[in-house]
Amino acid sequence: MILTVTLNTALDITYRVRSLRPHAAHRVSAVTERPGGKGLNVARVLSALGHDVTVTGFTGGTTGRVVQEQLTATPGVVDALVPVAGATRRTIAVVDERSGDTTQLNEPGPAITPGEWSAFQEVYRELLATAAAVALCGSLPPGVPVGAYAGLVRTARAAGVPVLLDTGGEPLRRAVAARPDLIKPNADELAELTGSHEPVRATRDARRRGARTVVASLGAEGLLAATPEGHWHAVPPSRLRGNPTGAGDSAVAGLLSGLVERLPWPDRLARAVALSAATVAAPAAGEFDRGTYDRLLGQVAVTPEASAA
Amino acid sequence: MILTVTLNTALDITYRVRSLRPHAAHRVSAVTERPGGKGLNVARVLSALGHDVTVTGFTGGTTGRVVQEQLTATPGVVDALVPVAGATRRTIAVVDERSGDTTQLNEPGPAITPGEWSAFQEVYRELLATAAAVALCGSLPPGVPVGAYAGLVRTARAAGVPVLLDTGGEPLRRAVAARPDLIKPNADELAELTGSHEPVRATRDARRRGARTVVASLGAEGLLAATPEGHWHAVPPSRLRGNPTGAGDSAVAGLLSGLVERLPWPDRLARAVALSAATVAAPAAGEFDRGTYDRLLGQVAVTPEASAA
Repeated sequence: MILTVTLNTALDITYRVRSLRPHAAHRVSAVTERPGGKGLNVARVLSALGHDVTVTGFTGGTTGRVVQEQLTATPGVVDALVPVAGATRRTIAVVDERSGDTTQLNEPGPAITPGEWSAFQEVYRELLATAAAVALCGSLPPGVPVGAYAGLVRTARAAGVPVLLDTGGEPLRRAVAARPDLIKPNADELAELTGSHEPVRATRDARRRGARTVVASLGAEGLLAATPEGHWHAVPPSRLRGNPTGAGDSAVAGLLSGLVERLPWPDRLARAVALSAATVAAPAAGEFDRGTYDRLLGQVAVTPEASAA
Repeated sequence: MILTVTLNTALDITYRVRSLRPHAAHRVSAVTERPGGKGLNVARVLSALGHDVTVTGFTGGTTGRVVQEQLTATPGVVDALVPVAGATRRTIAVVDERSGDTTQLNEPGPAITPGEWSAFQEVYRELLATAAAVALCGSLPPGVPVGAYAGLVRTARAAGVPVLLDTGGEPLRRAVAARPDLIKPNADELAELTGSHEPVRATRDARRRGARTVVASLGAEGLLAATPEGHWHAVPPSRLRGNPTGAGDSAVAGLLSGLVERLPWPDRLARAVALSAATVAAPAAGEFDRGTYDRLLGQVAVTPEASAA
């Protein structure tokens, strides 16, 4: 199985309103709820691709119960979330029907106690025993030490399990030094890590800092990969209109499934770009459109780049 | 006991954000949750005044479970909510810390089936047998007929239980014809009912349409009462700054407790105005500040008005 870790799981709630105006009262016309947090999104895409996935991280309160009830209903996904005393956070996306724009309200998440953090690390070690690969995804909830991902990367490497990391800021900086197999920063995270706003230079610099492979997600510009086997730029055939929520998580699922299936790098990148574009084009935020994915897969242009930095 | 009916119960969630900007992502710095819907607010104030209260209406889903858990923790309040298949709605108040203003997002509430509506009416009839008074409060959820309050007023009158109604629009218009003992419209609801924007004239007109007593809430201008025993205007001693959320519900609790305690009308109105003002002055929305209430109670000016329309 593939293991995904979401330390700051969420109940993602989407509201549709006619037009959002600060300081007014709004009647919400439609409400949708689904499990959220990057690692849960990655797991949903992996299961749609036919992989067995186990999810871990934290769950608590009535919001955590709703997340777990919905996970149980997702075929191919096994729930190994660790219970905590606090409540799983909500995120609220308010979609303005007139402009199509989204306003986001994100709760901070429950405070994790040292005992809960220890309990998680034990569960994580046990799950690694049967994992073909692991993805560590998203922000850290209050109470989890900033070096958390560095420790989880070391544990995975000691267990011989390939580890992908998708986070930003100080948790990313610390974890890169622990030599993860793959990091997938976006342009902002990459610039913050390396100090460079030039993606080709920054991607290669991030490798020198410790990541075995770096795949930078550049939005509509596709993916830029610096690997021990070579450097590539993978670009979708056309700019798709839609909602970019979850596009990065779909790219992570593409890279992770390609790793487990031992696909050549160009095929992994083509899959990740097609999944990402098919997520932007899907009507529901964070889902991917299967028809768009199948159509785009053969149309992604993957170009080798010169290996010299 | 006093019975309060909240057909559209809610889980009231308050978020604090630095500054609300449409189409941006916001980190919520503080989250509070409490049972909501007008009748539940009225019940909380009645219990703080020392009355035994039973609450009924609908509850469903995980949001309904949270509402019920918190109600159980409120001393003096008995939970007689009727379970439904849909989920109790959430309301989200986003408080902008810079301006102090609040943006409100209200879910529509669960669709009530005809069977659930029948089950509620049976519970309501049973609860009336031991009720000293009943308050019917707030909006109707989808699926409940627009004439619902008219029917509930008739049932209460047939059982000999004094009935207070606090709603607006078409449900109010229909229920007034069923001759409730007391209605408490705000200025907008009163104007919509009578077609008159002149409160003294409109209050008296609303009596002619069927309400035995009309107490109009005019915000900082206090309460205007048209009763069979006379007409009064009750005004708070000074304009209080704060959050008006729940001020009308506190006024209802003041009027209802005064009715059950058989206070003279001027004392009922003074209590309702002092509770209402103490709610505006309280730091938490919908709570009342006991010290402010005690201090204001003797300072409310209650003036008789000429009885001629």
